[in-house]
Amino acid sequence: MQALQDRIRRDGRVLSANVLKVDSFLNHQVDPQLTLEIGQAFADLFRAEGVTKVLTIEASGIHFALTTALALQVPFVYAKKKKAVTLTEDLYTVPVHSFTRQETFQVSVSKSYLSADDRVVIVDDFLATGDALMGLREIVGLAGAHLVGVGAVVEKSFQNGRSRLEEVGVRVHALARIESMSPETGVKFVETQKEATPVC
Amino acid sequence: MQALQDRIRRDGRVLSANVLKVDSFLNHQVDPQLTLEIGQAFADLFRAEGVTKVLTIEASGIHFALTTALALQVPFVYAKKKKAVTLTEDLYTVPVHSFTRQETFQVSVSKSYLSADDRVVIVDDFLATGDALMGLREIVGLAGAHLVGVGAVVEKSFQNGRSRLEEVGVRVHALARIESMSPETGVKFVETQKEATPVC
Repeated sequence: MQALQDRIRRDGRVLSANVLKVDSFLNHQVDPQLTLEIGQAFADLFRAEGVTKVLTIEASGIHFALTTALALQVPFVYAKKKKAVTLTEDLYTVPVHSFTRQETFQVSVSKSYLSADDRVVIVDDFLATGDALMGLREIVGLAGAHLVGVGAVVEKSFQNGRSRLEEVGVRVHALARIESMSPETGVKFVETQKEATPVC
Repeated sequence: MQALQDRIRRDGRVLSANVLKVDSFLNHQVDPQLTLEIGQAFADLFRAEGVTKVLTIEASGIHFALTTALALQVPFVYAKKKKAVTLTEDLYTVPVHSFTRQETFQVSVSKSYLSADDRVVIVDDFLATGDALMGLREIVGLAGAHLVGVGAVVEKSFQNGRSRLEEVGVRVHALARIESMSPETGVKFVETQKEATPVC
């Protein structure tokens, strides 16, 4: 998604080879128009699959789930994060390790809002180690629902999140794929393969 | 807002005189179209005030802040909640007590995203004791910004949140104001004063 890559180049701040701050437009202060376009892009990628529900995790996936759900005209569900949770029969709960915070959270979704009839798209702001997204995938599995695919706004392609998801058969789309970055040279995106221009 | 009141009557679950569950359409599973209409309603209430920024708190205010910001064509900012936070010079931080969780959180906003030039509308899903909204008001004050008003999706009018905000001069709008509720009789909304019908 060109508008997103341009915005990351302009307003993203690369603090190290691992840390990209996008909190001026994606995940603290948020540009609503860009968020709308991101949701439309996810919806276009998955619309043909008969999606019935969009799933994300609080907090920074919520606005992207909303705009995706709006474009697909289906509800969205945000999984809740707790330090510890009393397991109840009403919830699907899985542990998720946060690499950034070096903590393990319990992530849960009410059984009322995900069922075997659902065809689910998972969206989130970042795909890096893939822990959160693997956890959400597990919740979709517990519900017996069908996972259509995963949409990440920004992918750190130099980490192993995508390969972990693809190894278990998940279709992954990211709107901006970062190959590498550094405070000196900025962000280098993965080159997307261009269609060969037909010679007429 | 009639559509919201009707939806609360239909899908809200009153667990006690104090607890209303709206997690099938507002704050766990979310109806995106209703969320869009809620944002438009907030925007209509505050548009004349030259709003420059919408402020909310993670997680369940985020989708309402997005749709309000979209309708007003301004950015939104979501304050972050932490159990404990190392105070830094880059953040406005205030303590907020959560009545539901019986815990005190540190709530913070980066100084980069709120300034003395801003005219701010605060939105959130619930107004009950008003603790979260009073905390966000304090952050607006720390930034030296102008607080245009507060929009709550659902107000528990039998609690003191509204009066705490109004006592310090804050304009408060709620889209559904609950006068009282019980599992037996359901939800009773505050009667809004109707315009007298002119006799022709």
